[in-house]
Amino acid sequence: MTKLIGNLVFGQSGGPTSVINSSAAGVFLEALAHPDVIQNIYGMRHGIEGILRDELFDIGREDRKELEYLMGTPSSILGTCRYKIASPDKDETDLRRIHEVLAKRNIRYFFYNGGNDSMDTCLKVKRYLEAKEYECRVIGIPKTVDNDLYGTDHCPGFGSAARYLATSIAEVWHDARSYRTPMAIVFECMGRHAGWLTGASALAGVIGHGPDLIYLPEVPFDIHRMVEDARKVLEKRNVVLISVSEGIRTEDGALVAEQLSSRATDSFGHKQLGGVAALLANQLADQLGLKVRGIEFSLLQRCAAHAASGVDIEEAVLAGRSGVKAALQGTSGVMIAFNRPAAEPYRCEITHVPLGETANKEKTVPREWINSAGNYVTQAFIDYALPLIQGDPYQAHENGLPRFARLKKILG
Amino acid sequence: MTKLIGNLVFGQSGGPTSVINSSAAGVFLEALAHPDVIQNIYGMRHGIEGILRDELFDIGREDRKELEYLMGTPSSILGTCRYKIASPDKDETDLRRIHEVLAKRNIRYFFYNGGNDSMDTCLKVKRYLEAKEYECRVIGIPKTVDNDLYGTDHCPGFGSAARYLATSIAEVWHDARSYRTPMAIVFECMGRHAGWLTGASALAGVIGHGPDLIYLPEVPFDIHRMVEDARKVLEKRNVVLISVSEGIRTEDGALVAEQLSSRATDSFGHKQLGGVAALLANQLADQLGLKVRGIEFSLLQRCAAHAASGVDIEEAVLAGRSGVKAALQGTSGVMIAFNRPAAEPYRCEITHVPLGETANKEKTVPREWINSAGNYVTQAFIDYALPLIQGDPYQAHENGLPRFARLKKILG
Repeated sequence: MTKLIGNLVFGQSGGPTSVINSSAAGVFLEALAHPDVIQNIYGMRHGIEGILRDELFDIGREDRKELEYLMGTPSSILGTCRYKIASPDKDETDLRRIHEVLAKRNIRYFFYNGGNDSMDTCLKVKRYLEAKEYECRVIGIPKTVDNDLYGTDHCPGFGSAARYLATSIAEVWHDARSYRTPMAIVFECMGRHAGWLTGASALAGVIGHGPDLIYLPEVPFDIHRMVEDARKVLEKRNVVLISVSEGIRTEDGALVAEQLSSRATDSFGHKQLGGVAALLANQLADQLGLKVRGIEFSLLQRCAAHAASGVDIEEAVLAGRSGVKAALQGTSGVMIAFNRPAAEPYRCEITHVPLGETANKEKTVPREWINSAGNYVTQAFIDYALPLIQGDPYQAHENGLPRFARLKKILG
Repeated sequence: MTKLIGNLVFGQSGGPTSVINSSAAGVFLEALAHPDVIQNIYGMRHGIEGILRDELFDIGREDRKELEYLMGTPSSILGTCRYKIASPDKDETDLRRIHEVLAKRNIRYFFYNGGNDSMDTCLKVKRYLEAKEYECRVIGIPKTVDNDLYGTDHCPGFGSAARYLATSIAEVWHDARSYRTPMAIVFECMGRHAGWLTGASALAGVIGHGPDLIYLPEVPFDIHRMVEDARKVLEKRNVVLISVSEGIRTEDGALVAEQLSSRATDSFGHKQLGGVAALLANQLADQLGLKVRGIEFSLLQRCAAHAASGVDIEEAVLAGRSGVKAALQGTSGVMIAFNRPAAEPYRCEITHVPLGETANKEKTVPREWINSAGNYVTQAFIDYALPLIQGDPYQAHENGLPRFARLKKILG
């Protein structure tokens, strides 16, 4: 192995999570431990756009303590983006610019933290630099609350969002059950194509306070069947709790949210924006004649660091640290991934997935982890997800409020 | 003082909070400490309805450890109700029944935990029992996330909901600010007439991560002014965060939520249900042409025991314990209340407010605690609210999920 001396850059991309900054902490703290090889550590301002604009923060000028506070700070501290660089066969401008900035700054370690698209970015960067014979080790760090990344047992960000959802639903269960009044509550969880987060609602059921019905985007949704399912639950008790993915679709592939909301227009003739939870709750009110609530977890579920999973935080840090260690040992062109060697006891091993195998693919919930009626997840799903929400969050408090990392973010 | 030997009953009423069960714990644990005077301890099943139906839980048969877990269990463990007993000059049926059940069970201590309406119930019960010469000490324990109870500096339930809101908003702040994309987020907080909870959003501003604009129901709302306020914020930064009360009203007294939603009907011709946050977000999208999100905290804000305030929990327990102690010493016909002897250092003293002084009154945010533009709260509001969100929640965890109290709830 050649000892590749140079600088490191790390960027965050796509939708934030509660622990994306934990991976940042992992990368930064590990990189700082190797000053003989990694000289300067940079953070991309708003992901790959930070490279294109040559706007990089000098992480070496941050206080170490503040970098540790990143483990209790949600969202993308460096800024994120959704920029997708062009394919080099169509337009080389972006890649040429990336090469130019990396070379100018002698950056030899390129780290990018994100989902499918980000792995695609990593792959393009790696191939381009190789073609230009610029030596640079490219590592993808996985991240997504949706847990839909291919090639890894699970993904940093998912466990924390899952824990937040399960905790919140268990609490609302108590609220709803304290009345005699018949009521339906529809929870809306993130997930356009993959129902991992919505399925995680079932974890609240482990302590007996979960939803009665769960509908994932993996199974075609039928509103009449949902109403009938709810009616059956209401024969046994006065409250029905339902979790749905934002991305549920009918048999013909249309988004339920769009179908229902297209029927409603405001006074200006615009389509009413409206989450699928509120829309389905309206339908239940109409058809079952009871009190309803639609609760959309919206951004809350992906940034609730105050309810993060300790396991998720540790693994997010581990992904970052392992990535740096691997790169120092010569690895390049991979995404850091997790493997679970056995169902029990839970243990998480680091593996490397070639970028080409993970980029632009999506992992949905296996059909066999959803019950045959398509209205709940199976025990196998719960056994999979429960270990991922263990351990307390790392959020410190000051004045009754979270003590977030205060980075200086000095452009360097 | 006569030593009044007999039984005690405690009930929970109105909307749940994160700490109403902490007051229950306070009452139960203190009552259990006086077995020479208080022989049996009962819990009303669904508030006053439990007395009317003679459905009372025997708290003496619960495990002490489980009663302690009540401090981390949100909502009304005994069940709640919104039943309003008739005035005795109109219909004595309810009060006659209450008297009958209390007498049959030799209940000499009547505790009721709730808001304005519940204090009214206490008052009616007390007067009726006095008229019938049935000796029974009647104590009201305050509770409401809305903080609108008259006669007390603040109210158990408020601090926890405030802490949850401030924490969540500070987290969403990080999420929203991580993008370059211009965006408006409207948060909807509870409060039909009083803006205490919405005002508490400003606590997130203490650490620099609060909303930019806050609109309370105490000040008439003007949507055009809100759009202009938002536009001004967007001149300085790319994200504007706005907190509004569900109960904001226009100058003519109409609810903004109803005004905006009455313009929208669904395909069945029904009014679209829709929180004011989503409706205002739509307006901002229309008029400022940017990405928007409406985030309604819905039930989450009143049952998020996982983010409760330690101070709130302690005070809720204290209210319960103090009520029992006071009743044992002969006090009756009062609501337990809090007094703050000085602004600093924060300290909370127990006081007694005659039920007649607090029942059916509402305490709103003083106009001078809202800025002159009517779009934020003043430092005085923050100084008032900040001490109430201090201290960590008491929620224990098992398996990564909250360990809620498991009461046997045996009818006795």
